[in-house]
Amino acid sequence: MSILQQKDFDARLAAAREVARKNKLDAIIVFSTESEPAQVRYFSDYWPSFETAAVLIPAKGDPALVIGPESLTFASARSKIANIIQIMDFRESSQPEYPGSKLPTWKDVAKRYGLRKVGLSGYYLFPHVMMVNLARAVGGLKNVMPADDVVRPLYMKKSPAEIRCIKAAAKASEAGFKAILAAIRPGMTESELCGIATAAMTAAGAETTGYPIWCCSGPNSNQAISRPTLRKVKRGEIIHFSIGAKVEGYSASIGRPVVLGKCPKATREFLQVGLDAANMTFDEMRAGRKSGEVAAKIHEYIKSKGYGDTILYGPAHGCGEMECEYPFLETSSTYTLEEGMTFMQDMFLHRGAQGFRWEDGLLVKSRGPAEMLSSYGRKINILDR
Amino acid sequence: MSILQQKDFDARLAAAREVARKNKLDAIIVFSTESEPAQVRYFSDYWPSFETAAVLIPAKGDPALVIGPESLTFASARSKIANIIQIMDFRESSQPEYPGSKLPTWKDVAKRYGLRKVGLSGYYLFPHVMMVNLARAVGGLKNVMPADDVVRPLYMKKSPAEIRCIKAAAKASEAGFKAILAAIRPGMTESELCGIATAAMTAAGAETTGYPIWCCSGPNSNQAISRPTLRKVKRGEIIHFSIGAKVEGYSASIGRPVVLGKCPKATREFLQVGLDAANMTFDEMRAGRKSGEVAAKIHEYIKSKGYGDTILYGPAHGCGEMECEYPFLETSSTYTLEEGMTFMQDMFLHRGAQGFRWEDGLLVKSRGPAEMLSSYGRKINILDR
Repeated sequence: MSILQQKDFDARLAAAREVARKNKLDAIIVFSTESEPAQVRYFSDYWPSFETAAVLIPAKGDPALVIGPESLTFASARSKIANIIQIMDFRESSQPEYPGSKLPTWKDVAKRYGLRKVGLSGYYLFPHVMMVNLARAVGGLKNVMPADDVVRPLYMKKSPAEIRCIKAAAKASEAGFKAILAAIRPGMTESELCGIATAAMTAAGAETTGYPIWCCSGPNSNQAISRPTLRKVKRGEIIHFSIGAKVEGYSASIGRPVVLGKCPKATREFLQVGLDAANMTFDEMRAGRKSGEVAAKIHEYIKSKGYGDTILYGPAHGCGEMECEYPFLETSSTYTLEEGMTFMQDMFLHRGAQGFRWEDGLLVKSRGPAEMLSSYGRKINILDR
Repeated sequence: MSILQQKDFDARLAAAREVARKNKLDAIIVFSTESEPAQVRYFSDYWPSFETAAVLIPAKGDPALVIGPESLTFASARSKIANIIQIMDFRESSQPEYPGSKLPTWKDVAKRYGLRKVGLSGYYLFPHVMMVNLARAVGGLKNVMPADDVVRPLYMKKSPAEIRCIKAAAKASEAGFKAILAAIRPGMTESELCGIATAAMTAAGAETTGYPIWCCSGPNSNQAISRPTLRKVKRGEIIHFSIGAKVEGYSASIGRPVVLGKCPKATREFLQVGLDAANMTFDEMRAGRKSGEVAAKIHEYIKSKGYGDTILYGPAHGCGEMECEYPFLETSSTYTLEEGMTFMQDMFLHRGAQGFRWEDGLLVKSRGPAEMLSSYGRKINILDR
């Protein structure tokens, strides 16, 4: 039994329709790709692979899921939107031929829905070649408004159903890290450890990973964003994991450093500063607090310990259908924290060839510190192997 | 020890530089995203995640890897190109803030490299917002030429080293399917089975999956492109798998239907027609043959058996760093098959709620039928479970 029901999607579509009306737009169009499926999934429960996709939400009339030439049975089985339109623009980027195919164009779609002015969310992803066609169909580029800013408020505060999805994703992510702690031995590859986590997460109810998960070991540990390699993990070095599961479209993440064998004293002190700063983040992120002030306080703590040079960003970013989504918690942030906002507390520190991440999901509560959505192994794991 | 060496990347960059010169371009720029990392990896060995990336190959002077604000340590550890440029355009699509950051713009890059006319490969992926900035930097959109067509010939025929990578990916993909055959039981979820395959592939030397792999069971089996779900697999239905591993950037894929318990006679006949057509594809794809004629012959065979309505595309598509890349083998194709070209023989058939895929890698030989790059379990697998 799914957590999200048809009524949840209907309510989302109705809210987006209101956004279109308020902004005097004929429609909101949200766009997604294989690696950024969040927005289309949010409104339709469909998430593209290989091809791209959009949801068209007109101010008047029924919404439509817009897909590529090869995804009809896939989309039909998933979509919470009955009306599905296929267009050639959303085929694979390698431009397959589909001899004889006669799909509608953006011009046909614009005519059918009376589109003269549209808001496009996922604007920063939308390929140029598609924009040329869409703009031409609605009378020029000036009639395609960037709409990420007006759509975002719909999902910045999560509903109880959404919070259940994120918690389930966090739980499955814990199962992934638990499997790593049980299996890890010197000589295993970073990729192999990520495979073990993937199997454990999908066995624990994840659809798949929430993002391309990674393990960074030894000289790779200073990488904040990465991909796993065939490097074999060794004793005495930092091995850190960014492991996340996806449940009903919602992504969580767990970031943990692990050391096998003996941990050098300086490494241990560095890891502890990160963990203390990470814990402080949960305590500071309270409803009513100014985001930028929280970030500054955490950064001040790290600086006071002599590790100011190791800060890359953060200490938190929004999470939901994207593991990393708007808003970011940076020293420059100006918004106020509100109950029901979900974040990833994300403490990545690095100095020279050494780095690590502490990360767990976070729910801002009406009062008191933030709720921790995962906590398994949230300690300095030094394993005698 | 990697299969691909620095000299392989140097040779690729030199070949692209020649393409720039021949086409009177100041540079070739190839662009990649998290889900389409092939082109940047081909030239640099780096493949982006979360952020986007490009390789800039000037007609004169040294090439550069162009990345986003957060990927420097990641890219530095991977890149076979020494010169790395960070630009804000390549940040995550959620537009993180990076307070205080002062990265160069396309205008700075264009000035430094004297770019007045560039060829862009990955043109169909390139976001509109980036195109506006790039075009402005080189004096207008007319100075950004689509370059996919001129870059493609560099990798349409694979080198011996590339073929070794694809074969290693095919071998790891076989390990994934082998693990599925050993583990599968009624009641397991599609996602769980994909997780088992992922763990087996990474244990067998894969970096990760070659694409978001899937399992489609029962009513989901008519999906040609898909994602795994939490549906539990059952006896007597088609359960098909698209399982692929990535090795040194090269992706393979194995497509197989499986039936648990008793297989209805009509299902068995349908699966057999697909397998016979798939086998015929290997026999027909010989150097010197016209691509379109091969496709037509395979389709004719399927029609002669009474299944003409079940054809969606194919029966093959190029493969390499992208699991599905140019060229496609369609009835409309006009090129001639050449020794050293690699394809995925991809036979997807569906009728009503039932469908399946037979898929294996294929290498066109100087004489005789194509070489099969994977064959494990290439038979109608009816398992007594």
